[in-house]
Amino acid sequence: MTPHPDHPYAAAVEDLLTQFRATAVERDRAGGHPRHERELLRKSGLLNLAVPREYGGHGADWTTILLTVRRMAEVDSAVAHLFAFQHLQVASLLLYADPAQKDHYLRRTAQRHWFWGNAVNPLDPRTVANDEEGGLRINGAKSFCSGARGSDILLVSALHQPEGKLVVAAVPTARAGIVVHDDWDAIGQRQTDSGSVTFVSLRVGWDEVLTNPGPGGNTYATLRSCLAQLILVNLYLGIARGAFGEGREYTRTQTRRWPQAGVDSALKDPYVLHRCAELWLEISAATALADAAAARFDASWARGPALSDDERGNCALAIAEAKVLATRAALEVSSGIFDVAGARATTARHGLDRFWRNARTHTLHDPVDYKLRDIGNWALTGQWPVPSFYS
Amino acid sequence: MTPHPDHPYAAAVEDLLTQFRATAVERDRAGGHPRHERELLRKSGLLNLAVPREYGGHGADWTTILLTVRRMAEVDSAVAHLFAFQHLQVASLLLYADPAQKDHYLRRTAQRHWFWGNAVNPLDPRTVANDEEGGLRINGAKSFCSGARGSDILLVSALHQPEGKLVVAAVPTARAGIVVHDDWDAIGQRQTDSGSVTFVSLRVGWDEVLTNPGPGGNTYATLRSCLAQLILVNLYLGIARGAFGEGREYTRTQTRRWPQAGVDSALKDPYVLHRCAELWLEISAATALADAAAARFDASWARGPALSDDERGNCALAIAEAKVLATRAALEVSSGIFDVAGARATTARHGLDRFWRNARTHTLHDPVDYKLRDIGNWALTGQWPVPSFYS
Amino acid sequence: MTPHPDHPYAAAVEDLLTQFRATAVERDRAGGHPRHERELLRKSGLLNLAVPREYGGHGADWTTILLTVRRMAEVDSAVAHLFAFQHLQVASLLLYADPAQKDHYLRRTAQRHWFWGNAVNPLDPRTVANDEEGGLRINGAKSFCSGARGSDILLVSALHQPEGKLVVAAVPTARAGIVVHDDWDAIGQRQTDSGSVTFVSLRVGWDEVLTNPGPGGNTYATLRSCLAQLILVNLYLGIARGAFGEGREYTRTQTRRWPQAGVDSALKDPYVLHRCAELWLEISAATALADAAAARFDASWARGPALSDDERGNCALAIAEAKVLATRAALEVSSGIFDVAGARATTARHGLDRFWRNARTHTLHDPVDYKLRDIGNWALTGQWPVPSFYS
Amino acid sequence: MTPHPDHPYAAAVEDLLTQFRATAVERDRAGGHPRHERELLRKSGLLNLAVPREYGGHGADWTTILLTVRRMAEVDSAVAHLFAFQHLQVASLLLYADPAQKDHYLRRTAQRHWFWGNAVNPLDPRTVANDEEGGLRINGAKSFCSGARGSDILLVSALHQPEGKLVVAAVPTARAGIVVHDDWDAIGQRQTDSGSVTFVSLRVGWDEVLTNPGPGGNTYATLRSCLAQLILVNLYLGIARGAFGEGREYTRTQTRRWPQAGVDSALKDPYVLHRCAELWLEISAATALADAAAARFDASWARGPALSDDERGNCALAIAEAKVLATRAALEVSSGIFDVAGARATTARHGLDRFWRNARTHTLHDPVDYKLRDIGNWALTGQWPVPSFYS
Repeated sequence: MTPHPDHPYAAAVEDLLTQFRATAVERDRAGGHPRHERELLRKSGLLNLAVPREYGGHGADWTTILLTVRRMAEVDSAVAHLFAFQHLQVASLLLYADPAQKDHYLRRTAQRHWFWGNAVNPLDPRTVANDEEGGLRINGAKSFCSGARGSDILLVSALHQPEGKLVVAAVPTARAGIVVHDDWDAIGQRQTDSGSVTFVSLRVGWDEVLTNPGPGGNTYATLRSCLAQLILVNLYLGIARGAFGEGREYTRTQTRRWPQAGVDSALKDPYVLHRCAELWLEISAATALADAAAARFDASWARGPALSDDERGNCALAIAEAKVLATRAALEVSSGIFDVAGARATTARHGLDRFWRNARTHTLHDPVDYKLRDIGNWALTGQWPVPSFYS
Repeated sequence: MTPHPDHPYAAAVEDLLTQFRATAVERDRAGGHPRHERELLRKSGLLNLAVPREYGGHGADWTTILLTVRRMAEVDSAVAHLFAFQHLQVASLLLYADPAQKDHYLRRTAQRHWFWGNAVNPLDPRTVANDEEGGLRINGAKSFCSGARGSDILLVSALHQPEGKLVVAAVPTARAGIVVHDDWDAIGQRQTDSGSVTFVSLRVGWDEVLTNPGPGGNTYATLRSCLAQLILVNLYLGIARGAFGEGREYTRTQTRRWPQAGVDSALKDPYVLHRCAELWLEISAATALADAAAARFDASWARGPALSDDERGNCALAIAEAKVLATRAALEVSSGIFDVAGARATTARHGLDRFWRNARTHTLHDPVDYKLRDIGNWALTGQWPVPSFYS
Repeated sequence: MTPHPDHPYAAAVEDLLTQFRATAVERDRAGGHPRHERELLRKSGLLNLAVPREYGGHGADWTTILLTVRRMAEVDSAVAHLFAFQHLQVASLLLYADPAQKDHYLRRTAQRHWFWGNAVNPLDPRTVANDEEGGLRINGAKSFCSGARGSDILLVSALHQPEGKLVVAAVPTARAGIVVHDDWDAIGQRQTDSGSVTFVSLRVGWDEVLTNPGPGGNTYATLRSCLAQLILVNLYLGIARGAFGEGREYTRTQTRRWPQAGVDSALKDPYVLHRCAELWLEISAATALADAAAARFDASWARGPALSDDERGNCALAIAEAKVLATRAALEVSSGIFDVAGARATTARHGLDRFWRNARTHTLHDPVDYKLRDIGNWALTGQWPVPSFYS
Repeated sequence: MTPHPDHPYAAAVEDLLTQFRATAVERDRAGGHPRHERELLRKSGLLNLAVPREYGGHGADWTTILLTVRRMAEVDSAVAHLFAFQHLQVASLLLYADPAQKDHYLRRTAQRHWFWGNAVNPLDPRTVANDEEGGLRINGAKSFCSGARGSDILLVSALHQPEGKLVVAAVPTARAGIVVHDDWDAIGQRQTDSGSVTFVSLRVGWDEVLTNPGPGGNTYATLRSCLAQLILVNLYLGIARGAFGEGREYTRTQTRRWPQAGVDSALKDPYVLHRCAELWLEISAATALADAAAARFDASWARGPALSDDERGNCALAIAEAKVLATRAALEVSSGIFDVAGARATTARHGLDRFWRNARTHTLHDPVDYKLRDIGNWALTGQWPVPSFYS
């Protein structure tokens, strides 16, 4: 796909993508840790996109960041996921932390090009925190910790005993008591470093715990879930666009006409055109809703703690709509593009199947049927989605 | 549906709609000529929305006009069609006519609240024009002449003999030689006055023939087809929104829970919510593309005769995309909403089936598969839709 | 559609259909009571198809009867519904009644060509029965009483006070205390005589109450719901086939090619062929499942009271599957066939919209989503649908 | 999936499948030549299923063979393809060869458990045959030669110079002049030995050339394409059933409920049930049409050279219908089952993605859109599919 995001970082992004593209098929096959690509991201300075200028970052708006994520996912949706989650953790600081914490963490993020990982999977209840002099002692485990491996700093969540209230802290990954496992081996999104993390008597100081306001501390803080979902939207959309782009290129240059079509080129086959149109429309509609949702998110973000429930609901709904369409676009385009490109496009070295495997893996993050339920509930009754870690 | 267009004419439109709504079901059943509603439109001043201010009109932009059409179609898509085609004929003047003709026709349109009809069906080749001293003599017939009946002035097309080149003229409907037939009886869009017109030795002066530049005279002039298609998009979308709105209201107030659902209200049935979401997403995606297409059309319109083929192509493509989604939204929502509302919503007096009948009738204007072909061709090869009377 | 059922009654059916077809469009428009068609059905002897030979009937198997229903619904799905429900009530006798009752009612049905109606809507709880010397006294009302108007005898259900247990009785329609209302006016299935019935101190003798085994009296008795659903399957399928057949005939004889198609006949348009294929496949798949379900129903029926839960479950599941596909076929073919036939097929006098209106009305009988739930539950867990009045 | 084919070879098949299943995921990853599995097939005696009893084979009917192929494809669709194509080449002998050739080849096939390969890709025109004393000299190459590697005997096609007429011969794979390449590396169907073959001055005797009647020699001979397509149908269907079965097993034993579902088990989630139902219906409908097509094929086969064009057309049409549904079932079930099973089912060691990769690769054999065109053409005009190598 050619539509490059038109923003100040576009050239830097395209430079990175040229390098990612050269090895994307091979790295997908190998799986494992994209050490080199993470280094390139660090050096590019793009890890600081979301860090406000006052802390030394770029202070880019979310629309720009999300377009960058989408664009990167066209080429390598695994690395794009790591890149996107960097900004999600930065956003978590901005939403959950007190001023001193923001200053501490974000300034260092900007200066040292910290790569953030996460160990906050809210569906995994095994990690608990107990009070201790001056802080918390954390034990347990978390699965699906995207970006943990290779990270400099880690966002960690735990259930605070005995009440079971959620606490979130930011802790250097290298600290004793954190063990990041190399146990991620999925059919897609293979280089997302999404293995498990175990905590063995991890010591966390109170100044590392984000409680002012903390997760769910106010309506504004719940925007983290909106951002997480919006990142998924753009990753999925990037996968769809990437699959379409590679499939189109293959078709233009290599696909042979079907003899019964009665045309002299596959590019004139009425059914090839029909399928192309159907796939493109999936992308086009999802793009329109994703762009609208990003604009609404930026507007909600700008409202700060004054954000109202209605504004938040409106934003969450737009994201839910975009997510359904982006999910479908990713799955249907990554599979359907083969009908356009034809049998020989299944040759393994083209790696054209990685788009479907990436889409299939990532679109299961949380069930899209519950986004549909939220949308249906709003459309019928006018009620907003109830804020949660997934909506 | 409640989202009222937010523009200077919104209140006037809502006033009209209150009146249209009161009789919409009954008028659909009766069919025939909406004399009273046409009078209300004349009196409202809204027939002059597209007439530039220099000729005494409102000079509204197309986005505003199209939103008004869409909104009106929620309530009565037949009258909305008449209303929309008024502006299409005004646009034809603006695109095809020379300065003197614009001044003549548009000034009178504004002052006298002329209602325009059309007899230009390009698929019907029966009408021919022969040269005569000072003008043309026209004979033949045209089918599908929406708005002809009850009009003050008529846009007429004919094949100029002997070459068969298309000519378009603007002629008072009352002139001798024009016979407007009361022969429209379709399953939907019943009050669109879309019967046939016959021409018996109709005399047309050269000053009534629009040849500078005339249809297809330059790229800009071909925007008429874009506008015609964009009007259809908004009519279809209005039908979808109207069906959803009426069905939702019925469901909220009258639909009973299904006993096996295990919930105490139909509004909590997981499958009712799922269906609502699917229908709403059809509308939401089509709306996003329709809005984007309208914006692009306004931008193209603003370019005037400088409009390039690329700009025109881009606009035509956006409209084609919106048309496919609006077509599907209209058909699927108008049929599917019954699954939400339940069996008792089929009671004839609710007239909830008129949305499907209107959608089904109007979406056959030209085959949507050829919009898909245009989209597929662009998506695969980058070629723009070839300008025609339908693209 | 041409595939005539090949059975002993086929010629008689085709004779009837010739007459029904001649007035189908007109009677759809008029709505109301198909007195003449009911008389033709009485005279044809086909009302006795399901009555066993020992009682003087034809003793046809259910597959034959259902094929006849399907075939009739191609032409007139309202009258076909009346015809089908005749057999459903006869089946109710065979499933619910004791030997003496069977002898009494079925012998008279065969001899006098009784037309059966029903007032058993299980969702309408307003009708109650109280004990009285020698029988019951029934008061209340029932909605959706298909076939009640114009019937000779009526199957009536009521809640037996004070326990609220369901009782079912067979009562002559003319008896004092039964008031059949002429209040059915729906958007489709207009001549199904499906209005309401009120009971004002209706006296019913114990010998008229079907309690041995009665509804739900044993697994075999619950086959009534299976048959009711299977009738719907075949009505829907008949509607789909009828719409396809009429639309095809129109297309073959009247549809014009689309100029951009580059072919000399609509019958060669690649997209017309594509749409035809999609519609036909809906019909073909639904037909295959409907035929399989009918065979399984006949086998279950043949088992008599020895029918096991597994056999019944297997049968119910096959019917549920067929119902989902028949529902979709009816809705999608009756709407989509217009895309094949083109704009001029919307002319009201062709009445081609009646198929969608009939399909839309009848497919809401009970929500197809709960058939899907039953299928999903079986496919995932192996559990059979729980017998109810709808499964 | 549990429905084991119920035929004399079922136990032998299940024995094989137990062994195939144990290594299926691992062999899919490794790709390459399934030497061990081919040996097991040879030893099982099942390679002789299609060989008539008079030549020492099992003389199984095609329905039985196809059910076996389908069943095998549930577990390993690559090996199932090799197995199926064995019977396709045997069928080619039966359809194309003269009595002496049948006797020669089929007797040896039965006795020596010959494994047949093919090099007949009709889309690849590079192989030519020139006359030579006593036979032909063949040079050139063929791609997509499923089963060639590891075969004992090869069906070869070439264009007979100078007229370019197709000739088909059966030649021992070991003969000088045949080079089978190990160059198959696709994203799915990885162990189908579908690489290329080159012919370098291959000598073929006239007694090895199948010309009586040869391909297309009579209507009966064109049944080979029908069988080839029907094999694909059953392979696709097996893939769909295999994906559903493995996904269901995973869901039953490992899938966790989604917290927002408000149920205590994923097996009760209304949307999980809904998705299961939709997937199952794809399988169920495709199965019904595949079974019907197999029955029709057996009937056509039984007609022998007396087979009429109508009988052949009817059979080809049934196969085309089944192919469309089986294609969709394979693609949609293999992708959609993940929505049932959830995120953790994407763990690579489960290998659940191999179903989609197998489906995606194999369903591109020839474009399904041209099956739809054939179906649409018949449904609209009544014309049978024109016999070709793909219809």
